[in-house]
Amino acid sequence: MPEAIDYVLKPVGFVRSTLRDRQTAPRQGNEGAPDAWIEMAPEVLDGLLGFNAGQDVILITWFHQARRETLQVHPRSIEGRPLTGVFATRSPDRPNPLGLHRVTVREVQGNRLRVGPLEAIDGTPVVDIKPVLPHWNDS
Amino acid sequence: MPEAIDYVLKPVGFVRSTLRDRQTAPRQGNEGAPDAWIEMAPEVLDGLLGFNAGQDVILITWFHQARRETLQVHPRSIEGRPLTGVFATRSPDRPNPLGLHRVTVREVQGNRLRVGPLEAIDGTPVVDIKPVLPHWNDS
Repeated sequence: MPEAIDYVLKPVGFVRSTLRDRQTAPRQGNEGAPDAWIEMAPEVLDGLLGFNAGQDVILITWFHQARRETLQVHPRSIEGRPLTGVFATRSPDRPNPLGLHRVTVREVQGNRLRVGPLEAIDGTPVVDIKPVLPHWNDS
Repeated sequence: MPEAIDYVLKPVGFVRSTLRDRQTAPRQGNEGAPDAWIEMAPEVLDGLLGFNAGQDVILITWFHQARRETLQVHPRSIEGRPLTGVFATRSPDRPNPLGLHRVTVREVQGNRLRVGPLEAIDGTPVVDIKPVLPHWNDS
C-alpha cells in the first residue's frame, strides 16, 4: 500500500463493569449485558459539553485482549458454522480490534458516564463516543 | 488513568474516491455522497470470506487530516450554533479521529470493494469493516 503509516489511539476513558472476563461476557449488549460506568480521562472532559442522559450513543472500544492476527472465525465460536472472514462478523479478534457498542446514556456524573447495556469487560479502553445519527435507523 | 497505553492501528485498506478534499465533501453519506472503491491491503484479504454485495456494513475510517487537539466545535461549522463537545457531535476533529460510515456493498472484485454512498475523501485509511447488526435498527 502506498501510505503504509501507523496510527496511534489514545484511550479517552475506561469501562468499569461487573463483567470480568471475555469468556463469560455476553456477546452483544442486548443479550443480557449490565449497565457499566465509563471513567473518562481528565484531559478530554471538555469534549463532553452537551452530552446528556437519555440519548443513545455509539461507544468505540479497543478490545485489548483480542488476537489481531485472526482473519477468519467460526461465527459466535460455534464450530459447526462455516469459517467466515472477520470483516463479515463482529468477532473481537480482527486486525484492528475496535468494538462498536450502541448504548443509552443513563447518567452523567462529572468524569463518569453510566451507560448500558454494555457487554465490554472491566478495563476495556474507550477510544471514541459518537451520537447516533437519525438515518442509521431509517435504512 | 491507570492503563496509559497507546494502541496502534494498521490500515486494512484505503478509500479511492472522486472526492478530493474535506472542505467540499458532503458531511454524511446521505447528503449526496458518491460511491467509492475500497482497495484492501493484500495481507487481510482472507478477512473478506463471506463478504457479499448487497449487504450493509459499517466502515471505520481514520480521518487522517483531523485536528486531534479539538474538544469543542460549532456543529457542522455553523458559528451560530453553540459550542458542543466533540463526543456529542460527528466532527472529524476529535482525540481519536475515527469515522463511522454505514454503506451498502455494491460489488466485490478481488481486493476491491465498491461501496456507497461514502463521504470520506480519496486516500482515507480504512481501519475496520463490520456487518450491521439487526438490533441497531430496532432501537
